[in-house]
Amino acid sequence: MNGAESLVKTLLNSSVDVCFTNPGTSEMHFVAALDAHPKMRCVLGLQENIVTGAADGYARMSDKPAATLLHLGPGLSNGLANIHNAHRSRSGMINIVGDHAGYHRKFDAPLTSDIEALARPLSHWVHTSKTADDISADATHAIRAASTYPGQISTLILPADTAWNSTNNPVLTAERAAVPVPAQQQQIATAAEIIRSGKPTLLIIGGRSLRAEPLANAGKIVANANNVEIKAESANARVERGAGRQPIDRIPYPIDQAIEQVRHFRHAILIEARDPVAFFAYPGKPSRILPETCEIHHLVEPNGNGALTLEMLIDELGYRQTKTEFSSYPTPPLATGTLTPESLSSVIANIIPENAIITDEAITAGRQFFPVTFSSNPHSWLQLGGGAIGIGIPLAIGAAIASPERPVISLQADGSAMYTVQGLWTQARENLNITTILFHNRSYNILKAEMHNVGIDNPGPSARDMLELDRPTLDWVSLAKGMGVEAGRADDCQSLVEKIQRGLDCEGPYLIEAHM
Amino acid sequence: MNGAESLVKTLLNSSVDVCFTNPGTSEMHFVAALDAHPKMRCVLGLQENIVTGAADGYARMSDKPAATLLHLGPGLSNGLANIHNAHRSRSGMINIVGDHAGYHRKFDAPLTSDIEALARPLSHWVHTSKTADDISADATHAIRAASTYPGQISTLILPADTAWNSTNNPVLTAERAAVPVPAQQQQIATAAEIIRSGKPTLLIIGGRSLRAEPLANAGKIVANANNVEIKAESANARVERGAGRQPIDRIPYPIDQAIEQVRHFRHAILIEARDPVAFFAYPGKPSRILPETCEIHHLVEPNGNGALTLEMLIDELGYRQTKTEFSSYPTPPLATGTLTPESLSSVIANIIPENAIITDEAITAGRQFFPVTFSSNPHSWLQLGGGAIGIGIPLAIGAAIASPERPVISLQADGSAMYTVQGLWTQARENLNITTILFHNRSYNILKAEMHNVGIDNPGPSARDMLELDRPTLDWVSLAKGMGVEAGRADDCQSLVEKIQRGLDCEGPYLIEAHM
Repeated sequence: MNGAESLVKTLLNSSVDVCFTNPGTSEMHFVAALDAHPKMRCVLGLQENIVTGAADGYARMSDKPAATLLHLGPGLSNGLANIHNAHRSRSGMINIVGDHAGYHRKFDAPLTSDIEALARPLSHWVHTSKTADDISADATHAIRAASTYPGQISTLILPADTAWNSTNNPVLTAERAAVPVPAQQQQIATAAEIIRSGKPTLLIIGGRSLRAEPLANAGKIVANANNVEIKAESANARVERGAGRQPIDRIPYPIDQAIEQVRHFRHAILIEARDPVAFFAYPGKPSRILPETCEIHHLVEPNGNGALTLEMLIDELGYRQTKTEFSSYPTPPLATGTLTPESLSSVIANIIPENAIITDEAITAGRQFFPVTFSSNPHSWLQLGGGAIGIGIPLAIGAAIASPERPVISLQADGSAMYTVQGLWTQARENLNITTILFHNRSYNILKAEMHNVGIDNPGPSARDMLELDRPTLDWVSLAKGMGVEAGRADDCQSLVEKIQRGLDCEGPYLIEAHM
Repeated sequence: MNGAESLVKTLLNSSVDVCFTNPGTSEMHFVAALDAHPKMRCVLGLQENIVTGAADGYARMSDKPAATLLHLGPGLSNGLANIHNAHRSRSGMINIVGDHAGYHRKFDAPLTSDIEALARPLSHWVHTSKTADDISADATHAIRAASTYPGQISTLILPADTAWNSTNNPVLTAERAAVPVPAQQQQIATAAEIIRSGKPTLLIIGGRSLRAEPLANAGKIVANANNVEIKAESANARVERGAGRQPIDRIPYPIDQAIEQVRHFRHAILIEARDPVAFFAYPGKPSRILPETCEIHHLVEPNGNGALTLEMLIDELGYRQTKTEFSSYPTPPLATGTLTPESLSSVIANIIPENAIITDEAITAGRQFFPVTFSSNPHSWLQLGGGAIGIGIPLAIGAAIASPERPVISLQADGSAMYTVQGLWTQARENLNITTILFHNRSYNILKAEMHNVGIDNPGPSARDMLELDRPTLDWVSLAKGMGVEAGRADDCQSLVEKIQRGLDCEGPYLIEAHM
């Protein structure tokens, strides 16, 4: 057995059985080891940001990390933006990065770089294996770190000789990560006291506390207490929502709107959530969203057990036996005519199929989708975690690999889609049930608003030219076809509904260029 | 004047007048400043590896750095692979990376990361500006570092408030970088002595010593001395070659071939070149290419003046008045029939137009192109510098922007092309005269050979599946069309010649899917 095979066996022993990959020479022994281990599902991406973005989507839907296989420093670099997003979404990921053989590094061959230095800023755990004998033990540490609740980034660097040399060491299995801890009873009592006080109180909920059960418990608090509201963080890895589930809106991205919505709260109780801050600083506007007059209570940190804490909290409040009652949010009637933000919202709200996964990198086109879909069929909603655009197409891949029985609807802005457009090929290759709705507004629309926000009101032609994508216009039907994905164009609500139905019905991926 | 405008003015003062860009919110003031400064040519890329790869191509053809404009840590990360290539090609580049406003960083907003840590492994110079008043001086240091012969990577990080705050400080101009220094007279005398000795001697030439004049001087040494040969490094930023110029071959990439070609040399004299090493380590094969019995003479380091040293060396040898005589390398007759490595070579050799720029990321398809084109029309040949694939499409962009009067022929492997496929859009937007010949072999062909090289002779179906790009087959005509680039398919030599002619004749870019 060589080091590469001991790695594959250690991963499989530890229930890591999906590897998103873009390998090169230094990873060839890992690739060769796949033949003897067909249980390891390897999914090829044509650029590494597809690989890491897919691993993020996989972790969000399966609650366990996938491995990635990357080629030296440049391969890792190409995947860093979506590693950043995964880091911010608290997704687990085990990056395996091949390096030159140890004895070859000092010769500074062209592909040499300091891989540890490149990995460290965005990894929770980084290590370079020294010998083939070390690989299994090193891998168990990488897996355990990545599996630490709710999820961390591990980067294990394997010099090529550690992969090709043989080892007789036993193949190990990673220890299970520790179970996350809920808030202490005293903190829960304090939170209950605040909730009972009747003072305007906001529960800010994040992480896995946005699943159906903890949200239902949060809903009992809203229904029974006075002056308590709930909000999700601005960007969330996964929210379980739709008809029959507790509705929860997000803290808005636009700074003025966010401040306005929370200015009246006197207490904020954070559950797997952080004190909300502005996405960017803007001249003359505050960095924090909550007013100075609002007292912050860190009930559960992002790595704590929010679900169990909410159970304990409703017991403390005596709400366990109450029913969750929430105002209904009627789904808007299906619109007709041209595609506008409003008509698009109504189409999305009406077509979400039962048990769908929505991956959302709609950016400006999609801000109004969230509130109108509270009563759509039950679904999971996955957002861009770290603000690094280019996650949508790979996120849909990872979600579909993790949940093959569930349809995926990928809400995708055009500018962002171009960063990882290569991912459409992987969607076709793996025949994934992904329907992409590509919002074709032919510009970096968000930057037009941001220009205004930073105080530039009348940009001239040179500046505007850097925000437009219409010279030439991207033809998404051709791009999809070029990568083996069936595609169609929709110019109005009726054709959009028809094309979405076609996408859901066909076995593999489908892309709709929705003209706005 | 705000900090952003002082930056644009400082760049223009210092003759940096091209900026490849993919901006975001934190860069909006720089973008706004463009309106008042139309001399700054801004070229938009739809992903940052396009931006940095284009800056590399620009530097190679103009011998001065371009600026890039990148959005925080993820924007920089997306461009790191081609920064790595530029670093290895010794190209100058001034990366300007926007960051959060200084006072906003402590709030750890979603897009926050340690940009300096991400920049440092691949930059020669890194700095974060503190205030708007500092920007002009900081920019002059960045420009000077990037302009240090033969070229370096500078990364200047601009917190958003340094860009939007005003400054009354004067706008500065970067000092000119120091002129590189030739070898000392004593070293030159020693080199001359070795050359006169008649012992088998190899001159390894790199960097800007591969331009026409220094190569002609090297050719005089080959023509007049006994047992002296010349070779270029394995990967070269730019070689000036073709009819009437001194032919020079490269040290081959395949390790066995490289070792075989140089085993008889007893002396190696390095001129702007490094002691050659294997691209990868392979089990049982050496890391160094030259035999232990060969004495290495570092006549000119990569940052020294090889051109002047060669002048001094031919004077020392008394060869100045001699004629360069070199055996002619006849251009092979134009082949007909199907596209094979041999017939493709003959087409390339015959169609290179006068004064063309060849950008070469042909990988396996192109290894045999170099020796058959010694007598083609005079041209510049640009190679992949650091082994990070995905440079070809952006490299062609940068070369075309730097040399608008010269036709660019982009020799491009299919697997590599997918890493930065988005660059085709920029080629269309800027209406660049680039003819891309896309070698469509539907696989990571190089990895099949590398599997064998690392000792894996019979990979099974799972392993082979990770090396094939034929499920689904990429349709490059559709991909090009999707990004506004005219394209056609060639299945034999005749249609390839016709399509190349079409590409050269049409004003903007053209892509040929060449079926192998």
